[in-house]
Amino acid sequence: MAGSSIGNILKLTTWGESHGPALGAVLDGFPAGIELEESDIQVYLDRRKPGHTSIATPRKEADQVEILSGVFEGRTTGTPISLMIRNTSQHSQDYGNLADCYRPGHADYGFDAKFGFRDYRGGGRSSGRETAGRVAGGAIAAKLLRQMGIEIMAYTKSIGPVAIDPARFDKSLILTTPTAMPDAQADAEATEYLHRCMMEKDSSGGVIECRITGVPAGIGDPVFHKLDARFGQALLSIGAVKAVEIGDGTAVGGARGSQNNDPFALDGQGGIGKKTNHAGGILGGISDGSEIVLRAYVKPTASIFQEQDTVNRQGEAVKLTIKGRHDPVIVPRAVVVVESMCALTLLDAMLLNMSARAENVIDFYR
Amino acid sequence: MAGSSIGNILKLTTWGESHGPALGAVLDGFPAGIELEESDIQVYLDRRKPGHTSIATPRKEADQVEILSGVFEGRTTGTPISLMIRNTSQHSQDYGNLADCYRPGHADYGFDAKFGFRDYRGGGRSSGRETAGRVAGGAIAAKLLRQMGIEIMAYTKSIGPVAIDPARFDKSLILTTPTAMPDAQADAEATEYLHRCMMEKDSSGGVIECRITGVPAGIGDPVFHKLDARFGQALLSIGAVKAVEIGDGTAVGGARGSQNNDPFALDGQGGIGKKTNHAGGILGGISDGSEIVLRAYVKPTASIFQEQDTVNRQGEAVKLTIKGRHDPVIVPRAVVVVESMCALTLLDAMLLNMSARAENVIDFYR
Amino acid sequence: MAGSSIGNILKLTTWGESHGPALGAVLDGFPAGIELEESDIQVYLDRRKPGHTSIATPRKEADQVEILSGVFEGRTTGTPISLMIRNTSQHSQDYGNLADCYRPGHADYGFDAKFGFRDYRGGGRSSGRETAGRVAGGAIAAKLLRQMGIEIMAYTKSIGPVAIDPARFDKSLILTTPTAMPDAQADAEATEYLHRCMMEKDSSGGVIECRITGVPAGIGDPVFHKLDARFGQALLSIGAVKAVEIGDGTAVGGARGSQNNDPFALDGQGGIGKKTNHAGGILGGISDGSEIVLRAYVKPTASIFQEQDTVNRQGEAVKLTIKGRHDPVIVPRAVVVVESMCALTLLDAMLLNMSARAENVIDFYR
Amino acid sequence: MAGSSIGNILKLTTWGESHGPALGAVLDGFPAGIELEESDIQVYLDRRKPGHTSIATPRKEADQVEILSGVFEGRTTGTPISLMIRNTSQHSQDYGNLADCYRPGHADYGFDAKFGFRDYRGGGRSSGRETAGRVAGGAIAAKLLRQMGIEIMAYTKSIGPVAIDPARFDKSLILTTPTAMPDAQADAEATEYLHRCMMEKDSSGGVIECRITGVPAGIGDPVFHKLDARFGQALLSIGAVKAVEIGDGTAVGGARGSQNNDPFALDGQGGIGKKTNHAGGILGGISDGSEIVLRAYVKPTASIFQEQDTVNRQGEAVKLTIKGRHDPVIVPRAVVVVESMCALTLLDAMLLNMSARAENVIDFYR
Repeated sequence: MAGSSIGNILKLTTWGESHGPALGAVLDGFPAGIELEESDIQVYLDRRKPGHTSIATPRKEADQVEILSGVFEGRTTGTPISLMIRNTSQHSQDYGNLADCYRPGHADYGFDAKFGFRDYRGGGRSSGRETAGRVAGGAIAAKLLRQMGIEIMAYTKSIGPVAIDPARFDKSLILTTPTAMPDAQADAEATEYLHRCMMEKDSSGGVIECRITGVPAGIGDPVFHKLDARFGQALLSIGAVKAVEIGDGTAVGGARGSQNNDPFALDGQGGIGKKTNHAGGILGGISDGSEIVLRAYVKPTASIFQEQDTVNRQGEAVKLTIKGRHDPVIVPRAVVVVESMCALTLLDAMLLNMSARAENVIDFYR
Repeated sequence: MAGSSIGNILKLTTWGESHGPALGAVLDGFPAGIELEESDIQVYLDRRKPGHTSIATPRKEADQVEILSGVFEGRTTGTPISLMIRNTSQHSQDYGNLADCYRPGHADYGFDAKFGFRDYRGGGRSSGRETAGRVAGGAIAAKLLRQMGIEIMAYTKSIGPVAIDPARFDKSLILTTPTAMPDAQADAEATEYLHRCMMEKDSSGGVIECRITGVPAGIGDPVFHKLDARFGQALLSIGAVKAVEIGDGTAVGGARGSQNNDPFALDGQGGIGKKTNHAGGILGGISDGSEIVLRAYVKPTASIFQEQDTVNRQGEAVKLTIKGRHDPVIVPRAVVVVESMCALTLLDAMLLNMSARAENVIDFYR
Repeated sequence: MAGSSIGNILKLTTWGESHGPALGAVLDGFPAGIELEESDIQVYLDRRKPGHTSIATPRKEADQVEILSGVFEGRTTGTPISLMIRNTSQHSQDYGNLADCYRPGHADYGFDAKFGFRDYRGGGRSSGRETAGRVAGGAIAAKLLRQMGIEIMAYTKSIGPVAIDPARFDKSLILTTPTAMPDAQADAEATEYLHRCMMEKDSSGGVIECRITGVPAGIGDPVFHKLDARFGQALLSIGAVKAVEIGDGTAVGGARGSQNNDPFALDGQGGIGKKTNHAGGILGGISDGSEIVLRAYVKPTASIFQEQDTVNRQGEAVKLTIKGRHDPVIVPRAVVVVESMCALTLLDAMLLNMSARAENVIDFYR
Repeated sequence: MAGSSIGNILKLTTWGESHGPALGAVLDGFPAGIELEESDIQVYLDRRKPGHTSIATPRKEADQVEILSGVFEGRTTGTPISLMIRNTSQHSQDYGNLADCYRPGHADYGFDAKFGFRDYRGGGRSSGRETAGRVAGGAIAAKLLRQMGIEIMAYTKSIGPVAIDPARFDKSLILTTPTAMPDAQADAEATEYLHRCMMEKDSSGGVIECRITGVPAGIGDPVFHKLDARFGQALLSIGAVKAVEIGDGTAVGGARGSQNNDPFALDGQGGIGKKTNHAGGILGGISDGSEIVLRAYVKPTASIFQEQDTVNRQGEAVKLTIKGRHDPVIVPRAVVVVESMCALTLLDAMLLNMSARAENVIDFYR
């Protein structure tokens, strides 16, 4: 089944394995005419890149993107934008002992059950490296969204027990702290916590929050293509995400309607706004003009260095010790993946929305 | 944008408004040859039907399904199964004052912003009644899944502050308690809580849990069509759902890898199992053979009888008092909607999985 | 496999069997706000309706359409438009002897091979009656296209050996001649020819031509969603169509480039046109602003009253004599089906085209 | 609009421009476990490669394919197969004078009208070079089909006025004659004709026929995903194709039912066959077990060296003389493109067909 594409009229297809020659993406349906060069994409990829802090895998990947098609004289042409990233730092020998073993917390067993065998080097297709293609595509979507006044900002909300304090929120820190936390104190505590995890050959989970501003009301479609349903698919398609929330999220289960309902109100500029935003900017699957707020819950890195019980292909119980280079937490590098998936999802929905009203269709062709 | 279809090779399309002449669904791609009659579907619809308990809207709907196509001599033919439910209990006059008002917590404003106007009677297309079509389709998918040894069981996990106690779990109660809780004591407490909400012209949120047993390892696809990503879209497409979890869900954000990883182990019958199931039966987007565990967090009914602040189409601040017939909680009737969406999603993934290995394809055509 | 839907953001799903209780269609993604009532659709359905001429089956079907959703206060709402037509004239007993027999020229054998059994009454799902759903959907698409200055005109070009003479072309005759030929003399000759076929218990093929005016340049997409590729799928999905041509069609195989190339030229009104139109209005899959010209070649009605050799389900050679009510030619009633498929295909492509340029996207959301 | 993908569960996405750094394809959904190496693909690409005969463009392209993903230890993994071909022979300067000119017979004007500008070098995305990605993907599909006993054979049926004589049909010549005609005498005459065309700075159209053997009955889906409708889209998506026929094709328009119907008959081996094959192996959109016969009509190469009238971007009438390297006929190199599109389309339909019957689904998971 062709499961490596997402989107309706803006479609991203990713390809590639962790230890193959390259990986990449094809972004099809992107509108023609915006300026685009590799550096627009590279800044996004660099945020995902491993190896530059004390809490990240020492695996060094250049993650240098090459635009192979879809751009002419510096502008997008409306045809597929093909993006390739060569794999350069492959220690395939680290994975020799994994060919036969099912690593706990990984997709190994499922892949074997499904396909009969698998590329076991670094997780192959199920590696987090696959998300490089998403980030490359997301960077392009985000560029157009910015030209439309839409900003997508994701950051680390918590790592293990350490959460940011909204009172200390400093957006400028997202790109500079090792944890991608917008709070220097939480960053320090989380870093400390991660060092402790590493000492104990363990790893930590965390939470990514994403805020999107500038989205007009009316984006998204009723029923199965609700905007939040689309965000849900997009975020849960990121390997380690085990829960997704919109607005108040799980808290709505304990809430009352009188608390949860956001009263509509005049915004003082001739428009309509809301007094609160428990809904996270989406009502009935359609944007309501407020800030869109999403959260993704990321499980701890499955590759830990403690000895683990598992089973091998031959159906024998074995002890497994994982080698290689693994982050103690996935969250900081996944922040830009969340941003990218949100950008792709939102732009697709906004392109689709252009034909919602017959009057707009008729006007367009007048 | 055509957003009323879901699924790849098994596709459900729903149609209809709350107060139109009818609503329904077309289920296309369903395999030929299983016995199907209206009563198979009706038992599911009856679980969704309003009006039979003290905590449900007194709106009485027969919700009688009619199979219009796709079944011949009592068996599915492999062609689209068209399902129609006539609307019979329409008090459209209850909605007269809503034509111009944006109800807090509802999609009214988004629909107007998107489409320029809307069918305001009972929420129109954004009404919870739309889910009747989903349940009709889901009943059919669930019937085939049962013949494959797969059971999908959803139930109310909590309503407001009242949660079930796993120690008192009694599956047989799901279909008999007003709350759809598998715990008589919790049901009584939740009913009491809901009566209090109703007295206070308020409503409550809640949580639905869904457990799926019998799914073999290997179902789902890598990357964007991960099984959990598909479940995520399916569940978040249900109107009031604001969060979705798989397995440990949000708890993974605070967990360590050594706790969260489920060790693989021999199951004693020549197969492979897991010692724990923090993953909720899905790893890397592919089923691992364990029970699949999902949760949907449902917001409180937005239609409450307290006076609320809002804005009208003319851009004036107004006071709104909602009339009509509204459940104080959505959860009990949404339990079967969750089951239905899970059945449709899972069956689609299982049909898709049949061509994952070339050897199976070759064998099939030998 | 869900094969009963067509279109990307404007999607038509048809359902129903010839002798089931009803058949219909769901049109999803249609823009909100145009006036629509059942009579808009009925005029199209009436053109497809059997039973009103000497060269049509005497089967009388009211083919009365009912709009079940998607229209409110006389205007489309942007949500799925559900259309139902009750079957009223069912002589299922005519088909009793066909339950076990594979009719030559029909899909019976393929259906059995695929699904294991079939609804044999009147062809079931493979009946030409399925196209009623297409016409109902096409009528709606055509209405919006007309408001955009686009006219779709299909007509019978030939029946058996009798072709229309362009010199006698009279558009007004399309809706009034029994053959749907825009040429009274050809109509008379073709009618005469068909009476001869009927006397000889035989049937005839024919050709439908479709001309579309008012389409701006730039519609359609490169590569697999070329406008002509989409028309090709749409027209070849009509049961009896065995060939499709665009512009000069098959004649291009014998042509030279110097003949086939259409020189671009100024149109005298500040625009760009072409001196000739061998291309039929589509170059490289994208409309060039000229009239779009398509032809569909329709095979003779497979149900003839001569005794035929065939085989039954038990694998025995048998003689078959078909009873029932069958047109001696499919073409006149299929003319409106061709128009409908063209309308749906073109409108979908035009909606998709709105997001082709970034500048238009940015403008739309300004 | 994302129009560069085709297929449902086997999906090919192509990308790339004629004069960009590279072009390629991603084949997603291909079953796991068949042996695949670059040479399997290269033999197909070599058939499409320019420059090796007197009737082909002297443009030399190595067209060397590189497999970037989806293959591990020599076998397909079930994940996307990424295929890249570097462009090596770019004479972009040949196209300098075309930046502003709309070449007759080409998509230039449509691209500008749609996207606002275009990559004018060698046609950019609308170049025939795009089909290299299709052939790379088609080679892989054809390999699996061969393992299932299915052979796809396309060849040149005619070039201009010169057609092959079935009595001289010699399959072995397809791969060796410059024209890809399976008839040495016709090849000689057609070559002679093409030399004449070249002398006269002109080009020729032609016809490609494709025969597929070994397809079981039951492949394809009713209604919009009819097997022939899918073939129709696939073949009309090839740039220069202006007509597609199945079986008797356009001849059915003049035929009688008694001639056109193929009587079913016992095949003498316990199976069911047909005495004739006017239907070309497809009835009602579903394969009937007979040979599948398709024809694509290819227009003359639009790039001819005669001076032509046209218009430029500034809306001025101009004279155009095309330079560069262009085949006098597209057909011989397009033969393998037709084979490839048929392979992709057929395999997709066969994978989809595996879930048509509930009993097969239940058996698969037993």
